[in-house]
Amino acid sequence: MKSKQIQLDELAQLVQGEPIGQNHLLLDGLASLPQAKAHQIAFVNGDKHIEDAQASQAGALIVTAAMREHLSNHQNFIIVDNPYLAFAILTHVFESKVTQRGIESTAQIDPSALIADDVYIGHYVVIGKNVVIGANTVIQSQTKIDDHVEIGKDCFIDSHVTITGEAKIADRVRIHANTVVGGEGFGFAPYQGKWNRIAQLGSVRIGHDVRIGSNCSIDRGALDDTILENGVIIDNLVQIAHNVRVGENTAIAAKCGIAGSTTIGKNCILAGACGVSGHISITDNVTLTGMSMVTGNILEPGTYSSGMGLLENSKWKRTVVRLRQLADVPLTKLVKQIDHMQAQIESIESTLKLRK
Amino acid sequence: MKSKQIQLDELAQLVQGEPIGQNHLLLDGLASLPQAKAHQIAFVNGDKHIEDAQASQAGALIVTAAMREHLSNHQNFIIVDNPYLAFAILTHVFESKVTQRGIESTAQIDPSALIADDVYIGHYVVIGKNVVIGANTVIQSQTKIDDHVEIGKDCFIDSHVTITGEAKIADRVRIHANTVVGGEGFGFAPYQGKWNRIAQLGSVRIGHDVRIGSNCSIDRGALDDTILENGVIIDNLVQIAHNVRVGENTAIAAKCGIAGSTTIGKNCILAGACGVSGHISITDNVTLTGMSMVTGNILEPGTYSSGMGLLENSKWKRTVVRLRQLADVPLTKLVKQIDHMQAQIESIESTLKLRK
Amino acid sequence: MKSKQIQLDELAQLVQGEPIGQNHLLLDGLASLPQAKAHQIAFVNGDKHIEDAQASQAGALIVTAAMREHLSNHQNFIIVDNPYLAFAILTHVFESKVTQRGIESTAQIDPSALIADDVYIGHYVVIGKNVVIGANTVIQSQTKIDDHVEIGKDCFIDSHVTITGEAKIADRVRIHANTVVGGEGFGFAPYQGKWNRIAQLGSVRIGHDVRIGSNCSIDRGALDDTILENGVIIDNLVQIAHNVRVGENTAIAAKCGIAGSTTIGKNCILAGACGVSGHISITDNVTLTGMSMVTGNILEPGTYSSGMGLLENSKWKRTVVRLRQLADVPLTKLVKQIDHMQAQIESIESTLKLRK
Repeated sequence: MKSKQIQLDELAQLVQGEPIGQNHLLLDGLASLPQAKAHQIAFVNGDKHIEDAQASQAGALIVTAAMREHLSNHQNFIIVDNPYLAFAILTHVFESKVTQRGIESTAQIDPSALIADDVYIGHYVVIGKNVVIGANTVIQSQTKIDDHVEIGKDCFIDSHVTITGEAKIADRVRIHANTVVGGEGFGFAPYQGKWNRIAQLGSVRIGHDVRIGSNCSIDRGALDDTILENGVIIDNLVQIAHNVRVGENTAIAAKCGIAGSTTIGKNCILAGACGVSGHISITDNVTLTGMSMVTGNILEPGTYSSGMGLLENSKWKRTVVRLRQLADVPLTKLVKQIDHMQAQIESIESTLKLRK
Repeated sequence: MKSKQIQLDELAQLVQGEPIGQNHLLLDGLASLPQAKAHQIAFVNGDKHIEDAQASQAGALIVTAAMREHLSNHQNFIIVDNPYLAFAILTHVFESKVTQRGIESTAQIDPSALIADDVYIGHYVVIGKNVVIGANTVIQSQTKIDDHVEIGKDCFIDSHVTITGEAKIADRVRIHANTVVGGEGFGFAPYQGKWNRIAQLGSVRIGHDVRIGSNCSIDRGALDDTILENGVIIDNLVQIAHNVRVGENTAIAAKCGIAGSTTIGKNCILAGACGVSGHISITDNVTLTGMSMVTGNILEPGTYSSGMGLLENSKWKRTVVRLRQLADVPLTKLVKQIDHMQAQIESIESTLKLRK
Repeated sequence: MKSKQIQLDELAQLVQGEPIGQNHLLLDGLASLPQAKAHQIAFVNGDKHIEDAQASQAGALIVTAAMREHLSNHQNFIIVDNPYLAFAILTHVFESKVTQRGIESTAQIDPSALIADDVYIGHYVVIGKNVVIGANTVIQSQTKIDDHVEIGKDCFIDSHVTITGEAKIADRVRIHANTVVGGEGFGFAPYQGKWNRIAQLGSVRIGHDVRIGSNCSIDRGALDDTILENGVIIDNLVQIAHNVRVGENTAIAAKCGIAGSTTIGKNCILAGACGVSGHISITDNVTLTGMSMVTGNILEPGTYSSGMGLLENSKWKRTVVRLRQLADVPLTKLVKQIDHMQAQIESIESTLKLRK
């Protein structure tokens, strides 16, 4: 990768920070504190990293004004209020972007498709009937955009993505490799001992600035649409079933699964591998810790959890034995009984003292 | 999507129902009660939806005779015994099917492959040696059918599917996008601190009417075959390991994983994200609720569950502390001890009364 | 599949075993004990399979010297110390390997790519700028190797794999179908209620002899690299987040997820569907049983577990009720209280006896 060289003061300007030291110092990359070289810039993500920062070989550091006081080994800084945000902004400067535009000759595009002029469409992409693709969108090689799908402006769709089910995708959406959007929902009517397939007639609607990781499955709706609102971010290997609705700016980590017709509010955070049942509702501002199991509505914002955590195997085995006994142990009744017995004993003791 | 228009009485005939109202009313789609317009038909899935049905703008409703009594706002009906089943049947009428037939010029097909005349094979499909593909089967773009794979009649294979491991697939099978059938099973012999790969020589056999969702992995067997019997339905992101056998009409929801050499019976239902250990057996007619963890045989039909459910985070933390104490608390012994103490106390109290 | 025929004594030589019986017996495949025919060889994996072995129709058996004593129905054997290992070795003899070499005319290869002479590159493969591919590596159809990716010698990459993020892959690595290596890590800086994407600038480094199953997601690092050390084996549908490091010869079963920046030691075994939190450390020689939930460091080698196991549904419901009471039941305090009450009762009883 050819590296880009940028001056310290130019980088400072991009993050609205104050450059200190050699303003014209040329930097060609971001790096972590332990790995950074003299031609790279690193950031200090909180006071607990001050020691690592002192020891770092980075050519310059992104810090708060307060942190700088402790970094006597260094001379070149960008001073900002929020080093993590400044780092996030600068990653875009050093990223290798797909700058190529045009349509590869091997892409198969139905004549009815409407493709904006300045897109990139890679090799062996297949685009169906009446597809619409907006300006500046990049579609990597071997992706499939099925009939009637619409994709907005400035999107990035990586290789081997399948978009079907007449999905409608807004602007600045990023969909990573091998993800399926608009696949058939899992709908079957049981009848006489067999499963009768319900053809799925709804679609998928994806808002602006949505991000979907790799190997995800986002199913089309049965009748109404599956909906991801603006700003939703989703990690890898996530299942979104038919007719789910996910509210604005909700984040869903890897390996979560949301069953059919469930609604998740805005600004929620689902940590990895959570499972959410179908036909329930989760309000706004709910955080689920990893591997949570949600089987009913969540009506109050807050943080929720499940799972017993990790135990050494032999202790776990004993715990499971106790758990299996627990169903038949009336805990709260027992506590009351013990309290009552304690009172009885004390009463007996008093009686005995009196009669002594 | 160009819409198809069908008369009310024609739709009624398709579901063996009785049309009521304007028999010649033209309808062009199915919709949910809240979304339906005057040119669409909706169905009422049980009495709890009567109110929504009354308020619906649908041009016609699929109902039972009893429901109709409560729907004074409506004039056009199809009367059936099972509205959900009627709906399932009618979805197929309004579905956009792949009607195209033929082989795209860009498909790469080995000359030894036997392809029936009236298939559709999409762009950039790759078909290997001695492959057999039955009549009326649709293989969407960019799919890979590896050497010696056989696929029956009337199948639908979506884009980016990989079928390998000499898999044998029967008729009317549907495999959704980006699924892998016949991938190598995870078999390694540990020897001198290293993992020695066991090449997988078994295959995969898939029965009639099987349905597999998107992003699934169905591994080939080690020596014998992995088997999905007739009528099995599988949702997205499901793992079926080598030498698993799944019985007829069993349904497996998204994100389940079945480890190697396990047998699951007929007519079972696995809700989402269940995990089943290897080398065990689950009998017929077993239902597992979501996120169940199965580590031993299940010999009796019935419903089984695991998981502690969801707790508010601070309560969960206290619960986990208690759980960690539980291993060392002899619950049933304690209950007996408490009962015994209660008896002792009562005996003492009697003695004291007598001596008063 | 055309079958290869090999003599008993030749097979014995391959596993350094002793042939017994008809040395020139021609065998054309490995099979399981119940399925094996007279032209096949089977192996006996421990004494518990002796009965199956006696009943087997196999033409020859791989056994230990001790097992042979009990197999009077059979005449042809290969005697070895470790029949399972011998079986593992012989699977490679009967495996259908990709022997074709060359580059299909439909592969799109950037002129700057360096491709060794004796590779196989399948149809519709797309290879980007400055890619390096080593000798004897097989890349199946429709795979995408993005710019700056490097792949070593003797690798096998199946169809629909996406390798991006400038990943560096060593020798003898096997990556199964539809897996994504080097996808963008899930990094976002929250700011003013929105998620600001952090472009991922790190890469992925994969050691020698690593095996990755189908439908996995192995993300590139944020700044430093995600690392899989030599000999790591990974099953299907596994998530490896950005900046994870997995130590030598660690095995990760299907559906596991490892969150960002976590380090896993050498020779660990993660059974299926384990979830490991981010930014933690697991030492060498740790085994996790299936569905374990790891939220903190593991500093001691050993076996660890979580999960309550499976309960019949009605008992599970009662257990969950008790679990929800458990947070407010001071278990160890109660046990002490009960012991104390027992002592009080005994003391009272002594007193009463004395006063009789």
